[in-house]
Amino acid sequence: MSIGVFDSGVGGLTVFRALEKSLPAYPLVYLGDTARVPYGPRSAEAVRRYSIEAGRFLKGQGVEMLVVACNTASAVAIEALQQDLGLPVVGVIEPGAQRAVELSKTNNIGVIGTRQTVASNAYTEAIHRLDGDASVLVRACPLFVPLAEEGWVDNDVARSVAELYLAPLVEARVDTLVLGCTHYPLLRGVIGAAMGWDVTLVDSAQAVALTVCRKLDATPGEGVEGAARQFFVTDIPAPFQAVAERFLGRPLDHLERARID
Amino acid sequence: MSIGVFDSGVGGLTVFRALEKSLPAYPLVYLGDTARVPYGPRSAEAVRRYSIEAGRFLKGQGVEMLVVACNTASAVAIEALQQDLGLPVVGVIEPGAQRAVELSKTNNIGVIGTRQTVASNAYTEAIHRLDGDASVLVRACPLFVPLAEEGWVDNDVARSVAELYLAPLVEARVDTLVLGCTHYPLLRGVIGAAMGWDVTLVDSAQAVALTVCRKLDATPGEGVEGAARQFFVTDIPAPFQAVAERFLGRPLDHLERARID
Repeated sequence: MSIGVFDSGVGGLTVFRALEKSLPAYPLVYLGDTARVPYGPRSAEAVRRYSIEAGRFLKGQGVEMLVVACNTASAVAIEALQQDLGLPVVGVIEPGAQRAVELSKTNNIGVIGTRQTVASNAYTEAIHRLDGDASVLVRACPLFVPLAEEGWVDNDVARSVAELYLAPLVEARVDTLVLGCTHYPLLRGVIGAAMGWDVTLVDSAQAVALTVCRKLDATPGEGVEGAARQFFVTDIPAPFQAVAERFLGRPLDHLERARID
Repeated sequence: MSIGVFDSGVGGLTVFRALEKSLPAYPLVYLGDTARVPYGPRSAEAVRRYSIEAGRFLKGQGVEMLVVACNTASAVAIEALQQDLGLPVVGVIEPGAQRAVELSKTNNIGVIGTRQTVASNAYTEAIHRLDGDASVLVRACPLFVPLAEEGWVDNDVARSVAELYLAPLVEARVDTLVLGCTHYPLLRGVIGAAMGWDVTLVDSAQAVALTVCRKLDATPGEGVEGAARQFFVTDIPAPFQAVAERFLGRPLDHLERARID
């Protein structure tokens, strides 16, 4: 059974990598909609339209399950995708919310994400569906993505930005913090330092992989390696390739351009 | 004679505003391609395609001159637009380059912009066409746009980022610095402080307005106010409206959605 992974750009490769480790025997197909990245500033309507175009393309490639590795699309397009494709669809929000509820001891949970993910209220709603008593503090950290892309992940600027953004979460004494954006694990060091080392960080990529394993009734890490991996992007492949190989730590053999709109 | 102003998003309103002040009697039509903002990470091919779609839309609105207020599009699409539309097309790069050559006393010029504008080499080429002996140092400052959008324009983070990015330009003793991105004038304070107050900053919005006045043989500021202003965006108007009104300092009366792709 082949699994499709869709993101607006390169960030979803953190999810792809987690899936690859957990499900070595399953073929994976990645689609990065690099011609229209980032989805954050788009309207919900546009994001749903783009997601359905991406989902149809991946279904055309034979995938039987779709993982939406983009927080913006996960917040607004999961139901529309399930209806349109008739396939099981896993977003990044539910798994992150579930893992946070499982790991928190005080039910005092923090969530950080892009401005748009925060405005969608999707994490708060997902956590409250699982635990109506949880206290959820959500905070937008729009400079974290450009910091991660600039490679400024452990300098003074990164530390100052992390301290400014995270101060209200430290003050509120959350014991668990969801990294609600695929780029944020790259800043795990400065985020952890600003929060204090007793706060548990939930990496949504790992949470998604765990959810997919549970759905497939698969044991994480079990199976023979060597299943096919394919990569598609909607803009020219070259700029994606360099960053993607850094994310994955290996060359990309099967990278092609997809026309989906 | 009506003038069209095209940008990938809201940043081009700095150019719109400069044109409005210089040419109060000319009707202006603005198009922000908010469904596909930002153009920076797109391929040159995609940017040319989007620019031509935008240019055709504005020509359909009756404009007789097109101002491209987006650095990325100015770097790669001016010739294609002139050929396709058969109208005079003014980008932001030539005017900024020309103003820098006019104002520099030492011919030692700095340029800052997005990673993509820098990679295009467009400013260096434009300056060298005007002055083959000029020394040009170009530097990408990818965090400036998110800082401006976050409203962090005069805090410690903005100061640290400006100092880190601009140190090589200070060391090289440039006497003139081109702000090669429409968002950067918002950070003029920290940029000026990091460069030292004896360095002349060239605001490309003002440089474009000056170039358009020269082309039309118009005296800046002359004419009766009250010409029509229209605004179009390609995604839903609401998020644009709020930011645009802050940029322009007044309500937007004629904001509509345009379908161009």
